[in-house]
Amino acid sequence: MSFDTLIDWRGTHSAKWDSMESVYGISPDEGLAMWVAVMDFRPPKVVQDAVLDLHTKAAYGYYGNKGGYHDAIRWWMAERHGWQVEADQIFDTHGLVNGTAMCIDTYTNPGDGVVLFTPVYHAFARVIKAAGREVVECPLVNDGGRYSFDFDAYDAQMTGNERMVVLCSPHNPGGRVWTKGELQAVAAFAKRHELTLVSDEIHCDLTMPGQVHIPMALIDGISDRLVMMTAASKTFNIAGAHVGNVIIPDADLRAPFARRMMAMGMSPNSFGVHMVTAAYSPEGAAWVDELRSYLDGNRKVFDAGVNAIPGLHSMDLEATYLAWVDFAGTGMTQAEFIARVEGRAKIAANHGDTFGSGGESFLRFNLGAPRSVIEDAVRRLQDAFSDLQ
Amino acid sequence: MSFDTLIDWRGTHSAKWDSMESVYGISPDEGLAMWVAVMDFRPPKVVQDAVLDLHTKAAYGYYGNKGGYHDAIRWWMAERHGWQVEADQIFDTHGLVNGTAMCIDTYTNPGDGVVLFTPVYHAFARVIKAAGREVVECPLVNDGGRYSFDFDAYDAQMTGNERMVVLCSPHNPGGRVWTKGELQAVAAFAKRHELTLVSDEIHCDLTMPGQVHIPMALIDGISDRLVMMTAASKTFNIAGAHVGNVIIPDADLRAPFARRMMAMGMSPNSFGVHMVTAAYSPEGAAWVDELRSYLDGNRKVFDAGVNAIPGLHSMDLEATYLAWVDFAGTGMTQAEFIARVEGRAKIAANHGDTFGSGGESFLRFNLGAPRSVIEDAVRRLQDAFSDLQ
Repeated sequence: MSFDTLIDWRGTHSAKWDSMESVYGISPDEGLAMWVAVMDFRPPKVVQDAVLDLHTKAAYGYYGNKGGYHDAIRWWMAERHGWQVEADQIFDTHGLVNGTAMCIDTYTNPGDGVVLFTPVYHAFARVIKAAGREVVECPLVNDGGRYSFDFDAYDAQMTGNERMVVLCSPHNPGGRVWTKGELQAVAAFAKRHELTLVSDEIHCDLTMPGQVHIPMALIDGISDRLVMMTAASKTFNIAGAHVGNVIIPDADLRAPFARRMMAMGMSPNSFGVHMVTAAYSPEGAAWVDELRSYLDGNRKVFDAGVNAIPGLHSMDLEATYLAWVDFAGTGMTQAEFIARVEGRAKIAANHGDTFGSGGESFLRFNLGAPRSVIEDAVRRLQDAFSDLQ
Repeated sequence: MSFDTLIDWRGTHSAKWDSMESVYGISPDEGLAMWVAVMDFRPPKVVQDAVLDLHTKAAYGYYGNKGGYHDAIRWWMAERHGWQVEADQIFDTHGLVNGTAMCIDTYTNPGDGVVLFTPVYHAFARVIKAAGREVVECPLVNDGGRYSFDFDAYDAQMTGNERMVVLCSPHNPGGRVWTKGELQAVAAFAKRHELTLVSDEIHCDLTMPGQVHIPMALIDGISDRLVMMTAASKTFNIAGAHVGNVIIPDADLRAPFARRMMAMGMSPNSFGVHMVTAAYSPEGAAWVDELRSYLDGNRKVFDAGVNAIPGLHSMDLEATYLAWVDFAGTGMTQAEFIARVEGRAKIAANHGDTFGSGGESFLRFNLGAPRSVIEDAVRRLQDAFSDLQ
């Protein structure tokens, strides 16, 4: 298979394509869907074969014996990230929005503060608020088009009401692969303020070639307050399978989570389990490396084209396929630049303000698409902002 | 397809087949798996085709626009049960154990009592206890081998600490299709004690020919405290898809459930949605009617064979494919009759005591299998208890 192949997923209940018109007013016939974080690529053959095998056998009953599934997760984390995971540390959630929600439910109480480094993945704030907890925004510093932390400022912000911090690593949006020093500083911050540290590493596999993601679990001295979250859903483009790995190294931290999993009647669906078991394999790994290389090509084309437009700046992606483009330099209001991107370029991109404070002048563009789509997007954006050239 | 076809699901991660040896010490090579409530039948072609279509298109991203899915659910409830459901009343849970758990979480507090009419589906008590609520067992009356309620006794039992009652309708185990009068009495009981009434109707489609299931939603005067639960999982043998319909007619009762769904980050997986949309159709309905007829034949063969063994009594099934066999008449201890069924007959059946008080002298046998398996089971049981003949 080639990542260059255009796939038409209109009419398949694809949220990305089939909900674009109702959300953006952009017809999929003329527009580009660059919003929802799903790629326009089929998953690797090994994953496809797992679905076909399920269809052939038609054994859709309760899934028994998760040993092989958890072995596959453990193999992947060791092979790809140098991280040794024990089987009894793994919990199977319905994706990581649900995983985040389960953490909030288990480790905090209504009214407690949950720290987010903003701008950050929008679903975090949604579930925090829905659970009656308080979002505590600690703004990332945009240092010449690259995000970093300012822990002195965050320390001054803390009131003592905070109980949890959710880190997005690698960072969505912005694409940072946090350095070991940065991860150590986050861990120290969590310890200093006695916070449970939830490390959402859903994009850990999608680093750009040469970049090395460090799992928070490999940082010293934080395991007693650490919840790790990874998933195959972004890596293999199977978000609809609703699978998430919540991995809790510490037994004392694990016990209350296990109780809540049982109390919420949680167990994984068969499809997700079969697909992920297939994905976390040498065949899956080879595909991911091809994908990373292709995405690196995409972001180079996109960044070169977008950064050539005066006033626009696309952050340098170290990971993810989600370009984070700052329109601040245009001097336009949010409404003005959105009108050009959506109204003129007919591109559906995520609005930056939904990611929290600091995102107001940004749009997030999904680059998980054939190269020709990225080239088309660049042309459309250059046209839409041609008066600035 | 024929229900007579023997399917070998060993090695497919089938909980029913592949976990039998570890749970019962019975090898699937020599034993009969008659425990986990999954049938040994493939789902109808229309459901199989939906999975094949997913494989062909490989669109495994986030599922968008649930309109068609909810229309299918509404069509099914109206067509099969004469029950008009509005789209905004439907919540998509990860099966009905999760659905029950969400109800407990939403409508009760730790320490509250939750009433169960026992013996009843074992997972109810598990999630109630795991959530730190108290199981309040109201024993069904075994009136000549048929279950009925004793509301005078239940009224006397109530302490005022009870907040919820979970009804299983049709009843698992025991196979009762509750009459309109019985449902009205349950509704009156819930009102009298100010309980939220959760009506688990997962077996509503699997009535024996001639039996008519009445949805609790059609009982007058209970809608303001009623949560309905149905699913395609038992009906179409797709439990691993983890789909459940929690349907709440009353807007005031719905609002807190909606908040908890959002707070727990819950949304359905694509496979379940595609399969159920296909299943809730005229093709699906025709298959279900064939299935019901076949199951009726199975239970006649089973009951005739088992009831011919002195001291054994299989309850008359009005619905479900789960035979509930009383061994009390043998005078044996639970250990003795289990030793004969598992040790001699090599049949894995559910132990009655796991269903709560009143189940101690019973075993539950899954009749969702080809007729030849049922005949084999009868022979094995007759042999195992041949000294009683």
